[in-house]
Amino acid sequence: TVAKSQMMDPQTKFTDFPHASAPVKELMLDLMNSVETRIGSSLLPCSLPPDVQFYENSTGTAQGTLLVRSGIPSSPVDFILGSWVHCKLPSGEALNITSLSTYMKPLTDAPNFIVEIIQGSPTSLVVILDMPPRKDLVLHPEYLKTFYEDTQLDMHRQLLEKLPEVTPYITPSLYIRALVSPSAILVRIAEGDKTAKIEEIIQDQLRPISNEIMKVWLDTCASGGRPVEKDEMACLAKRDQVTRSKSIEIDLGTSLPRLFGEEVAGRVLQALEGTFNA
Amino acid sequence: TVAKSQMMDPQTKFTDFPHASAPVKELMLDLMNSVETRIGSSLLPCSLPPDVQFYENSTGTAQGTLLVRSGIPSSPVDFILGSWVHCKLPSGEALNITSLSTYMKPLTDAPNFIVEIIQGSPTSLVVILDMPPRKDLVLHPEYLKTFYEDTQLDMHRQLLEKLPEVTPYITPSLYIRALVSPSAILVRIAEGDKTAKIEEIIQDQLRPISNEIMKVWLDTCASGGRPVEKDEMACLAKRDQVTRSKSIEIDLGTSLPRLFGEEVAGRVLQALEGTFNA
Repeated sequence: TVAKSQMMDPQTKFTDFPHASAPVKELMLDLMNSVETRIGSSLLPCSLPPDVQFYENSTGTAQGTLLVRSGIPSSPVDFILGSWVHCKLPSGEALNITSLSTYMKPLTDAPNFIVEIIQGSPTSLVVILDMPPRKDLVLHPEYLKTFYEDTQLDMHRQLLEKLPEVTPYITPSLYIRALVSPSAILVRIAEGDKTAKIEEIIQDQLRPISNEIMKVWLDTCASGGRPVEKDEMACLAKRDQVTRSKSIEIDLGTSLPRLFGEEVAGRVLQALEGTFNA
Repeated sequence: TVAKSQMMDPQTKFTDFPHASAPVKELMLDLMNSVETRIGSSLLPCSLPPDVQFYENSTGTAQGTLLVRSGIPSSPVDFILGSWVHCKLPSGEALNITSLSTYMKPLTDAPNFIVEIIQGSPTSLVVILDMPPRKDLVLHPEYLKTFYEDTQLDMHRQLLEKLPEVTPYITPSLYIRALVSPSAILVRIAEGDKTAKIEEIIQDQLRPISNEIMKVWLDTCASGGRPVEKDEMACLAKRDQVTRSKSIEIDLGTSLPRLFGEEVAGRVLQALEGTFNA
């Protein structure tokens, strides 16, 4: 496998975004640049096998990439995870899922970051953009205040949902609904008659908002976060572990086998589980 | 005060609903009847002072009632709480808030029940209908499965949100958003041209749905629930306590002084805090 992958030089990487629309690519590159500028020196290079960094199905109609960069020992960041999946649909259209998420170590209780853009047709897409909490907000109102109220995260959601093209997106998974923060952006952007094009909304509205939320995450979470007591570390580690395993089960664990077949999916999921449980 | 209240005989009670529309009154009486039939014999009579069971402002433009029935020692129900507030608005219209909620003891982890109907104009109202969880659903996926997935609670939300008159209601309070379950019904029902009247929707859609959810609560929570270990009891007690004190702070703690003045509000809130912290 290594020999085959090395022959594919230069190999398609996560940051190439060959199938994303121009505004989605620019949005993602903005975020990757912010991460690189602010915390790049405390993240190790990706050490996943080449056939996990880039993978495709036997007929070449489905392709995916995975990027994992772990934090150095002194970093509060456990790892960042970039992923995209591209799949030609029988209709001639394509499914593109692009995401970037960050995962903290249990030595801080600071929230994670996630952006996911799911485009299944040229006229409609779903966006998930959030700093998912790592503690029970009901039991910890001061955590809610620090990371969500004082940072005014809900303002961005309110602005976006005022656009006529934007409607709340309710994910079928009750677990995912419970996982996100109360200021999470979960929206569907659909093109109507005489309304703005989806690409304009991504460029003019979603891109600045995702940059703002990434800035909040970098300012309040990535650059140290809040240290926690030893007792709490065990709770955080347990909660993180449940979250990660449920997320794989609900998300890629279901979609990858369907899109790539059992063999490719098994290889990618094994690498992912290795990262999540390292 | 006691003398004055005793003179107002018969005193207006929670279950009189003198200001509610007919379908709201019927919906609430259905729920009260179900509670009475199934667990009435394990609930004590209301022992609140008469001037808290019924209260009004000095000019008589605002009235409210409070009903608290505590569970007997062997009951898993801590207490049920009924409340309505009626307030004439300067516009000539009226604000009516009607609610029924239940609170469990920490010897079980079973969810609570809440319904709240907020009508601020004849053409629009807000409904909150839920079994708020008493544990962190992210850390306890099996709890989510037992009380929310296996009971198919989300089906009711989906049915209601298919109606053209119904839109998701997003409460300004991030804490309340975190408090409710992922299958919570939080909707605004607004009358449009040529669409069904609000009263028809309450009668034909909301009333059967609220009866169904109350039935789930009575079947899975009120009639025993799940017993918990001693360690967990302390966690549940702590979480319940935070929830109750934040709920008062956000909800009645803010609205009662505005609607009834400091003196009346102080008396009612003191009784409420006494119930919540007993």
